[in-house]
Amino acid sequence: MKEGNQGEAVYKADRVKQEVLEKLKVLGARIVNDLKKERWPSVELPQRTTKNIVYDDSLRQYVLGSKRAVRTLSNIRHVRPFAQMVWLMKFAKQLIESGKTSTLRDAYYVALGENVDFEDQDESDDIILELESVLGNPREDFNVFPEERASIYGDLVIEYTILGFRGNRIDLSTHPDGYAIGPALTTAEFVRCGAEMVFVIEKGAVFSRFVEERADKKFKALLIHTAGQSPRNCRKLIRRIKEELNLPIYVFTDADPYGVHIASVLIHGSALSAHIKQINVPDAIWAGVYATDITKYKLPAMRFTEMDEKRLSELLEDPRYQTDPWKREVKYFEKLKRKAELEAFSKYGLEFIVKDFLPERLAELQKR
Amino acid sequence: MKEGNQGEAVYKADRVKQEVLEKLKVLGARIVNDLKKERWPSVELPQRTTKNIVYDDSLRQYVLGSKRAVRTLSNIRHVRPFAQMVWLMKFAKQLIESGKTSTLRDAYYVALGENVDFEDQDESDDIILELESVLGNPREDFNVFPEERASIYGDLVIEYTILGFRGNRIDLSTHPDGYAIGPALTTAEFVRCGAEMVFVIEKGAVFSRFVEERADKKFKALLIHTAGQSPRNCRKLIRRIKEELNLPIYVFTDADPYGVHIASVLIHGSALSAHIKQINVPDAIWAGVYATDITKYKLPAMRFTEMDEKRLSELLEDPRYQTDPWKREVKYFEKLKRKAELEAFSKYGLEFIVKDFLPERLAELQKR
Repeated sequence: MKEGNQGEAVYKADRVKQEVLEKLKVLGARIVNDLKKERWPSVELPQRTTKNIVYDDSLRQYVLGSKRAVRTLSNIRHVRPFAQMVWLMKFAKQLIESGKTSTLRDAYYVALGENVDFEDQDESDDIILELESVLGNPREDFNVFPEERASIYGDLVIEYTILGFRGNRIDLSTHPDGYAIGPALTTAEFVRCGAEMVFVIEKGAVFSRFVEERADKKFKALLIHTAGQSPRNCRKLIRRIKEELNLPIYVFTDADPYGVHIASVLIHGSALSAHIKQINVPDAIWAGVYATDITKYKLPAMRFTEMDEKRLSELLEDPRYQTDPWKREVKYFEKLKRKAELEAFSKYGLEFIVKDFLPERLAELQKR
Repeated sequence: MKEGNQGEAVYKADRVKQEVLEKLKVLGARIVNDLKKERWPSVELPQRTTKNIVYDDSLRQYVLGSKRAVRTLSNIRHVRPFAQMVWLMKFAKQLIESGKTSTLRDAYYVALGENVDFEDQDESDDIILELESVLGNPREDFNVFPEERASIYGDLVIEYTILGFRGNRIDLSTHPDGYAIGPALTTAEFVRCGAEMVFVIEKGAVFSRFVEERADKKFKALLIHTAGQSPRNCRKLIRRIKEELNLPIYVFTDADPYGVHIASVLIHGSALSAHIKQINVPDAIWAGVYATDITKYKLPAMRFTEMDEKRLSELLEDPRYQTDPWKREVKYFEKLKRKAELEAFSKYGLEFIVKDFLPERLAELQKR
């Protein structure tokens, strides 16, 4: 949490960007130096294949293994991606230095405008993933943000670090529909927090329900709405809340294979992001809705679709689901072949989920 | 705009809810009265079929025509939907009286819990549409809100009217990532506005770009992000901004058939909502990206997919697209068979869309 007065603030977000800038300069200087000495410039990349993903016990997330590839200008097939990455390094440097932000899509179009050849956005997205893996930083650290917006509400005062708003503070309990989590909120410092836990919620309607039933007050909770799969900058923000404010994080998703996956990606990390460390939240707790809750609470449930069956069969084979509660619930889904939504608790009235289900579930989880 | 002190505030949102409550009571009393006099209770419904949709010149939107159907308990096939609607009327009354909000999905589950038989959510959604058409009010007026969240940013101070926040004020220029437009913002009063126009934007990334390039300051503009097709409560909010603050509204969408449709639904209303008056914004101006802009600005463009072709052929036959700029642009799309995104302007650098395109487009539109 931030301390001290605003005038001399050195923000954590600034430090991270300075580090990235340093890494970019070192990489660039090495390329220039190689060229001057008439050596072929090269860059080392971790291999981003599923075969090179291992679980790191100390980080408690999946990370890339030790397999690395060398990309060198001496190989004609490497010239194109090498040049693309050098351009991207320049673009990243410009973004950080100007304080501007961008998206994956913007980056693609800027490249087109500067006559850097990308077949399509997939190709530029891929080079951005590569630069992440070379730097070891998520793209948000060089100001490339997702388009999706999660939102947040609760007793937390933040201070902005972005241009034009630097030093301004805002109390996140003043707008009950929630504050969008974009570049400004992602890079903000935490100034003061009255909350004692965090509820992460997949669905917008349930987020609104929690606000309306004053779950924020009753449980002293920050409420975060991920709008489905949580965007990476939202995962990072939740991790910062865990690390800097030391609050327990409870994750609520629909009781279906996709909901399980949403909770798991937040907690264990995604295979797609294994090249980036520390955007998952290993201490977060999946709090439901469990498959077993469908039976326990007699929730209205729907039959699995083919897509649900397919997703479930993937979960059954995934190493992330071999311990409880994951294993137990995935097995139960296999038996039940039915799913239920978070809103299904409304069967017992609109108040039930906050008044009855929440305290019961928290008591169960805190007993463990 | 709201005037006067907070203590005695009678909010517009309260008045609307009182009106709906009155209508519900009149409907209910008529049913009870019929039963007492041993007559079959009945209710009149406008026919919600495409054949009964006409353009209303004074309202400047599509509305339902004069064809009506009578639903009566004397017809055995009407008993089920009649009973469902009576239950919904009770639920709507409870929502208004308690100040609670709900979603279409919540309403379905609450019905299940109270043993009101709905086959699935489609059936309960349909009864909610019917109640809207009987009352002549959108469901937001009886506290049923969409799950989707648009967001807003700019120089506007609002005052909440919902429980727990009544009388609180908030300045919508303090959080640059935007404020979610949920139940609280939808029903808020406008207290003070320094903006002189509104930019409605389909894409989150472009909304962020507008904030970052300070389009809100340069053009004294409120920025609204619809996240694709604008949810109905967002359309209603934009209409209120037009009516109560008298600001011109400019709408920016991708240059593709779906973008045209998004702009058109906001301006002309949707066939699906023809039974509800005044949630469209007839004075809003579609400001691009036009098909002709793809050529004019040499924007990177992609070939139409089959879905684009199909949507375009629907637009070509739709009566809403028979005047310019709609007709001109739809015809140009037919010729070009290519599409471009709002972000494509980044080809000319991240600043271009606000620094160059926006003033050019506004000058063109204001010349007319």
